[in-house]
Amino acid sequence: MEVITRVADLRNRLDKESSVGFVPTMGALHNGHKALIDRARAENRVVVVSIFVNPTQFLEGEDFSKYPRTFDKDREVCRLSGVDYIFLPDVDEVYFSDELSILAPKERGFTLEGFHRIGHFNGMLQIVLKLLNIVQPQNAYFGKKDAQQLALIQQMVKELFLRVNIVPVDIIRDRDGLALSSRNRYLSHSERDRALAIPKSLEIGSKLIMSGERSTSVIINRMLNALQELDIDYVEIVRRDFQNIESVEIGNSIILVAVRVGNTRLIDNMFV
Amino acid sequence: MEVITRVADLRNRLDKESSVGFVPTMGALHNGHKALIDRARAENRVVVVSIFVNPTQFLEGEDFSKYPRTFDKDREVCRLSGVDYIFLPDVDEVYFSDELSILAPKERGFTLEGFHRIGHFNGMLQIVLKLLNIVQPQNAYFGKKDAQQLALIQQMVKELFLRVNIVPVDIIRDRDGLALSSRNRYLSHSERDRALAIPKSLEIGSKLIMSGERSTSVIINRMLNALQELDIDYVEIVRRDFQNIESVEIGNSIILVAVRVGNTRLIDNMFV
Repeated sequence: MEVITRVADLRNRLDKESSVGFVPTMGALHNGHKALIDRARAENRVVVVSIFVNPTQFLEGEDFSKYPRTFDKDREVCRLSGVDYIFLPDVDEVYFSDELSILAPKERGFTLEGFHRIGHFNGMLQIVLKLLNIVQPQNAYFGKKDAQQLALIQQMVKELFLRVNIVPVDIIRDRDGLALSSRNRYLSHSERDRALAIPKSLEIGSKLIMSGERSTSVIINRMLNALQELDIDYVEIVRRDFQNIESVEIGNSIILVAVRVGNTRLIDNMFV
Repeated sequence: MEVITRVADLRNRLDKESSVGFVPTMGALHNGHKALIDRARAENRVVVVSIFVNPTQFLEGEDFSKYPRTFDKDREVCRLSGVDYIFLPDVDEVYFSDELSILAPKERGFTLEGFHRIGHFNGMLQIVLKLLNIVQPQNAYFGKKDAQQLALIQQMVKELFLRVNIVPVDIIRDRDGLALSSRNRYLSHSERDRALAIPKSLEIGSKLIMSGERSTSVIINRMLNALQELDIDYVEIVRRDFQNIESVEIGNSIILVAVRVGNTRLIDNMFV
């Protein structure tokens, strides 16, 4: 395994490769990332993991400076998972002065996460576009946990005619049901206990659907009830392309939850 | 030569090609375009010309609907120039609903042409990015006449890490000195006569520089004088990266002129 900081060096290594799997991350790797890497390892000859805490997707007042940076541990995770290259660029290696910028889609980019974190998706799309162009992988792996991010990336690939296969990977949960997130480490013991209402609310939603309920407003209300101890940003059920729906479309819907637990913002979802 | 309207068909044809030269156009081909095509023909095994009047780069009130569309003649120009593929997509083939958009660089994208045609470069960059990704050429050819466009495209290629060589091609002029433009056909005889002040003003500027003058304000004033019969949008001298300069840098500067002659807006420039 090699740690590479320069774009030109990475391109040299990958230039003749026709089977590259790419896992873009912001580091602080957990078993959710490991699931992405394992999948990439199984499906490609060469696996590249990028570690880059992208400044342009953090908003004013968010946790950019205190976002966990755990490179020694991350490198070990990558090494043990059979990663070939870690791409670890400086900000100056990928950003320039007076750049063009990407504006997320006016509708789908500014609802839900895009509404609560205005501008977040602009920066996310910008760095993903850069990284996909740098690495030019055949396959790129993204977690379903950031469901709206995943949908926007799939849309970008279509709109900009990028030649990459976007592979969605299922959410990994701790034994108590909480979806893995680099931000879980911010939670105190009691906050973590309260946060378990999130996966429980998703269970409630999915059980209602399994029992035949289709009305999104009925399901959402029952979930809001289960989350009432928390500071709720939104509970929503959308189609997989993030269009609003009044009735659940089985096999094409996502139940989404975003809450604040203390100072920590957590999101979770279930594809139904 | 083949005329192709679908992205998938074009990709099929080009998939195994490693020497593709690309000339994106809005049709209404003249000898300026022919110079781009001839250069592409000389430097690549396969030459693709796209013809697409891109709606997103026309502003409210501009000439999108009346922009000259001369496909039969364009096809003949391409055929006689040895073009392999004309890519002639519908709007729906390259644009989708609720798209992400490109915002041109805040500084360099909103001065000069970007100031007089606010938003123009957003749409231009968007379509060029799409087309470059569709065609994936080794070389793409752009005229120096749209100097700011050229600089912004070169900047985009760098910022987004696109793998294409951007080839700038010199301005082609009519015998009377007027730079070729698809919009010249809008000019009446008397307007065309008056428009000749544009190349004359550039001559005046370049002669001053050759005689040792370096002050951009002195040169600009002399040029403004020569253009006083016309409705001037701007006369400017910038560095090739479009930064402002007070003193001409030989080999790294551009003299730019934008004027309106009747209802027709004309731009011209000289690289010095």
